[in-house]
Amino acid sequence: MSSPSLVPRLHDPDVRGFASDNYSGVHPEVLAALVVANEGHQSAYGADVYTERLQESFREHFGEQAEVFPVFNGTGANVTALQAMTSRWGSVVCAASAHIHVDEGGAPEKMGGLKLLTVPTPDGKVTPELLAVEARDFADEHRSQAQVLSVTQSSELGTVYTPDELRALCNAAHALGMTVHVDGARIANAAATLGVPLRAFTTDVGVDVLSFGATKNGLMLGEAVVVLNPQAVTSVVRLRKTSMQLGSKMRFLSVQLLALMTDELWLRNARHSNAMAARLEAAVAALPGLVVARPVQANAVFAVLPAEVTEKLQQRFRFYTWDPATGEVRWMCSFDTTESDVDAFAAAIGEELAAFSA
Amino acid sequence: MSSPSLVPRLHDPDVRGFASDNYSGVHPEVLAALVVANEGHQSAYGADVYTERLQESFREHFGEQAEVFPVFNGTGANVTALQAMTSRWGSVVCAASAHIHVDEGGAPEKMGGLKLLTVPTPDGKVTPELLAVEARDFADEHRSQAQVLSVTQSSELGTVYTPDELRALCNAAHALGMTVHVDGARIANAAATLGVPLRAFTTDVGVDVLSFGATKNGLMLGEAVVVLNPQAVTSVVRLRKTSMQLGSKMRFLSVQLLALMTDELWLRNARHSNAMAARLEAAVAALPGLVVARPVQANAVFAVLPAEVTEKLQQRFRFYTWDPATGEVRWMCSFDTTESDVDAFAAAIGEELAAFSA
Amino acid sequence: MSSPSLVPRLHDPDVRGFASDNYSGVHPEVLAALVVANEGHQSAYGADVYTERLQESFREHFGEQAEVFPVFNGTGANVTALQAMTSRWGSVVCAASAHIHVDEGGAPEKMGGLKLLTVPTPDGKVTPELLAVEARDFADEHRSQAQVLSVTQSSELGTVYTPDELRALCNAAHALGMTVHVDGARIANAAATLGVPLRAFTTDVGVDVLSFGATKNGLMLGEAVVVLNPQAVTSVVRLRKTSMQLGSKMRFLSVQLLALMTDELWLRNARHSNAMAARLEAAVAALPGLVVARPVQANAVFAVLPAEVTEKLQQRFRFYTWDPATGEVRWMCSFDTTESDVDAFAAAIGEELAAFSA
Amino acid sequence: MSSPSLVPRLHDPDVRGFASDNYSGVHPEVLAALVVANEGHQSAYGADVYTERLQESFREHFGEQAEVFPVFNGTGANVTALQAMTSRWGSVVCAASAHIHVDEGGAPEKMGGLKLLTVPTPDGKVTPELLAVEARDFADEHRSQAQVLSVTQSSELGTVYTPDELRALCNAAHALGMTVHVDGARIANAAATLGVPLRAFTTDVGVDVLSFGATKNGLMLGEAVVVLNPQAVTSVVRLRKTSMQLGSKMRFLSVQLLALMTDELWLRNARHSNAMAARLEAAVAALPGLVVARPVQANAVFAVLPAEVTEKLQQRFRFYTWDPATGEVRWMCSFDTTESDVDAFAAAIGEELAAFSA
Repeated sequence: MSSPSLVPRLHDPDVRGFASDNYSGVHPEVLAALVVANEGHQSAYGADVYTERLQESFREHFGEQAEVFPVFNGTGANVTALQAMTSRWGSVVCAASAHIHVDEGGAPEKMGGLKLLTVPTPDGKVTPELLAVEARDFADEHRSQAQVLSVTQSSELGTVYTPDELRALCNAAHALGMTVHVDGARIANAAATLGVPLRAFTTDVGVDVLSFGATKNGLMLGEAVVVLNPQAVTSVVRLRKTSMQLGSKMRFLSVQLLALMTDELWLRNARHSNAMAARLEAAVAALPGLVVARPVQANAVFAVLPAEVTEKLQQRFRFYTWDPATGEVRWMCSFDTTESDVDAFAAAIGEELAAFSA
Repeated sequence: MSSPSLVPRLHDPDVRGFASDNYSGVHPEVLAALVVANEGHQSAYGADVYTERLQESFREHFGEQAEVFPVFNGTGANVTALQAMTSRWGSVVCAASAHIHVDEGGAPEKMGGLKLLTVPTPDGKVTPELLAVEARDFADEHRSQAQVLSVTQSSELGTVYTPDELRALCNAAHALGMTVHVDGARIANAAATLGVPLRAFTTDVGVDVLSFGATKNGLMLGEAVVVLNPQAVTSVVRLRKTSMQLGSKMRFLSVQLLALMTDELWLRNARHSNAMAARLEAAVAALPGLVVARPVQANAVFAVLPAEVTEKLQQRFRFYTWDPATGEVRWMCSFDTTESDVDAFAAAIGEELAAFSA
Repeated sequence: MSSPSLVPRLHDPDVRGFASDNYSGVHPEVLAALVVANEGHQSAYGADVYTERLQESFREHFGEQAEVFPVFNGTGANVTALQAMTSRWGSVVCAASAHIHVDEGGAPEKMGGLKLLTVPTPDGKVTPELLAVEARDFADEHRSQAQVLSVTQSSELGTVYTPDELRALCNAAHALGMTVHVDGARIANAAATLGVPLRAFTTDVGVDVLSFGATKNGLMLGEAVVVLNPQAVTSVVRLRKTSMQLGSKMRFLSVQLLALMTDELWLRNARHSNAMAARLEAAVAALPGLVVARPVQANAVFAVLPAEVTEKLQQRFRFYTWDPATGEVRWMCSFDTTESDVDAFAAAIGEELAAFSA
Repeated sequence: MSSPSLVPRLHDPDVRGFASDNYSGVHPEVLAALVVANEGHQSAYGADVYTERLQESFREHFGEQAEVFPVFNGTGANVTALQAMTSRWGSVVCAASAHIHVDEGGAPEKMGGLKLLTVPTPDGKVTPELLAVEARDFADEHRSQAQVLSVTQSSELGTVYTPDELRALCNAAHALGMTVHVDGARIANAAATLGVPLRAFTTDVGVDVLSFGATKNGLMLGEAVVVLNPQAVTSVVRLRKTSMQLGSKMRFLSVQLLALMTDELWLRNARHSNAMAARLEAAVAALPGLVVARPVQANAVFAVLPAEVTEKLQQRFRFYTWDPATGEVRWMCSFDTTESDVDAFAAAIGEELAAFSA
């Protein structure tokens, strides 16, 4: 059963930019899987065969104890996970640059009643020393009890924790009676960078719960809460529901995630977007008037360049200014960024820088 | 750019049942629209051309003031809408059978801090008299202030409010200083039954905010908050975000809704599922041992039959027992229910009833 | 160290009415205890000797496992207790007339995220049968999980549960995996009526947590959460703090409660207010044109009389209309109500009724 | 009507320390006022003559628009006020050392759904420059909208904002569309330091809402939300109720506050405790081995001294270590601290320092 679209194409499918990996569309393999899962009836709310198969897939990647709960978006994954990991009176330690703090509209506090205790970091990465700044006074009833450490992998600043760094963090947190959550909105990019299996820097180093990112890596829509340590959570099933993250026709969330896990599409996509970022960095790093501002360890390039140049460039390509004060910009690559996209963009950067300095 | 699915089909696409309209899949026209919207980059979070076009479409249907905000699911639509309509201290009057009270896991209370004041109804429909039972003592600081009336159209019991009934409710609520929310999870079925435009029983009778249901009517996933009276809400944009209902690649939510609104797919689907329910009712109404329990006004048939018969039937077809105490069952038809599905099911009902009484 | 008041008396200390038991002031023994606890320094937040002694006192009354947590008011006690007894996704079954539902401004939902599942009752008292109406479908993720039964003793309608009734409720709730909370805003009045020790209808019949009412029974201000079964709660200490119920100079809350428990002041006061209600009932029950509407089992008299008579009476004495639709009024007696107060009021009622029927 | 206490005195009224101003008891004038307000019936929940008179008193101090709402404690005042000043999606900028962030157990987030955006400060005082660090990107739907600046006067670090500093902050906040809240837990101490009327650094400089502290300054229990700019709030009446801060026998909260405002008791007490802190500072500032760590501008002295000395001293006097890492301790003076208390403590400090260095 197929049908022509009665909705006309309203956009130019050849236009791509460097604004965000969620400006991209759906990977063809994911789209094909959606079609395969269609037609006929399947039990709603996760009692379908695709969701069942998804469990097997995630257990292969994350270990026998792993449980996967598809949700709608990253904020939903994070807030559901963090509620499951905390008492009503608990708080969460995270980097001041964490997505849960700066980009979720206050959802953790407003929906989950979660207090966040933030620590400034030089590079988006928490350390055991930084954790200790806020993870203290556990028995003081006046202070919200720090119960969870949440870190982002790869971080909002394009950096990647090594397995050893994560292990040290997990050990430090566990020694304090805390558990560890990873916001893995771009976890595939971290895995591609590290060159190790997903479990090597999650389950195996002591991470308790993971928000598994997928939308940015080729899905239409869909993320997952992955419980690695069942002792670390209360009912995710219940909290997914109360957190308005329970999809009715869940087969369509699950089959997308399944497509991502099949034949390592997650890794193929992530390697590609990382490679595009590396290509971009290589092409612009030596340009006079531009400084690559942070280590390029995943699919983001942060650079500082003159505001006038940025303005000119933004008339030609879509991307965001990260910090108006310093002139820092962020260039994101995605699974569908092409080498010629990068080359054309790098050329444009060079042109505009040259024109500016002329 | 197309691709074969690397995920195999795991289900039998020919199996359908009568359990729920969200056991169905995606309508082919919706799927085709998803493909059309794919490829290339579009601004995330709603700043895309499909979301823009969707605004126009909803304004055509609901009037020039209407604003549409795509969200993920029905609970998300309801809780976002109701927060936008209430003060922090407000409460919502609804039927005791309302989805927001019985089927949202407490999300209104737990996420929105919304107090629900429920009234029992004979048929799932609130009346001005029933509203008055809880909508009172507005100035009493000890009582949570009733600020919104929420009704479901078509109702959870398969009944449909007439435009006059809704007008009377809106007038009554507005006279009390309250506003009116419609949970329109199955609003298309109501429109098909009433045979009038959508606005004839929403905007035109005074409804302030609508949760527009779409998933059950042929979408993969997606609903919308539709503000009909902008004076009745605070920022839906903000509350959609904090309520974890903001999709990043929103073009894919919007284009599905757009497909539904195109060439009246919403109405074609709803008429069909309603017709299938009517066909089923007609086929079984006269069967001895079975009583159609409620008026069949939309796409649901409620019937009372012997528990033993139900049990036998459930081995052959998927459907739910609605009330174990009375033996009432619910049979839902969906956009993809076929006449032969209905006929086969009706025949089976007849067989099992006959076998039981033999 | 004593001092004259620089604030003049602004009210007439001889005026009393029948509006509410919290229109009364502070019992002299409680006031004297406040003076005794004053002067010098005591550790704040409960680490003082009066709070320590209070623990002993409550253990004597409620058993060795009991723990007492002074709080500010009844809503604070209830919301703290119910949070401690529920998961984030849980709900609470209560009578539709329960204070937590009708008189706490939505605090349970808005502060505690608690969903209330209400059952209508004839007399303010839940029964196992009524509990079963809402305590069901525990495994259904769409339905908020009923985890606590909350009952009010004596009830908002002036009725009293017998120990056997409470035991049956506790057994029923426990059999369902639920725990039991008693809102004991007027528990002393119930004890006075029943003529049994406090524990005979709380700890001994299976009640898990109690909101111990004291303000209405002679305190200036102060109630307590009393945990009878420590297995039924998470940290009340933490939740009292987050619920804004932790008093800094707690010795003054504790010493009031201690005064109430000393030489059975709680019981003396309750017996007196109950006796005054009985006296009032006896004086008016036979008056033509007036019907005592409910059993007088504690310190409240509910009566139905003509609205015109009520209006006349309210010009002479303070009391509230309970239900304008039926003409039902509520007359509350308190620890300081005198026999002559009652006699004067009963005489006035007789006069106004006579004048009306004349 | 008076009565002897049946509760014996359990503490030594002559023992005082330097741990906290809420280790102190009730000022005799406050106690006397409580007695005056007792006896007879007064309408509950604020409809009494003492609460009425309190309104007049606060209007005299804070201007004709001021409205005062007695509440139970400081956290209750802050969370009620901040809810009244914010949308559901708003956030509050405050110092990282603010009581609302570090000492309220997460109540702002958990009860009020308030997101806090903290800025580090050198001395507990926010500046317009620090405000700007977090008060930005108001139109970004991903970021919780900064709507309120909350500052503490005198600060948690014993420092005091000048009227000009507060005016500059109010101007900066208002220019950004924000409003200003002052946590005045120790506002009287600030007024005493500044030597100006209360309104000179609140109403007159643009402060919108004040949490008026009273417990620490001689009350048994009681604080107040004071609305200075009615345009800055939604219903405090409603939010006080839902926030579990509505006292039933409110006359006893109000009359305490009234006593505090009578004949400038608030100022007499604050001047005294400030003077005691100054006396202590003067006595110890020159001691070798001890450094006064912060400006002594109110009733707190922060000092750094050897941990061994602190330990010895704490066996003789009660006080808290502020920062174990640096050895900083906090010494608080209260309205009942005597000159001989200070002199004895200073002597002990000198002795222990001498013994340590010997």
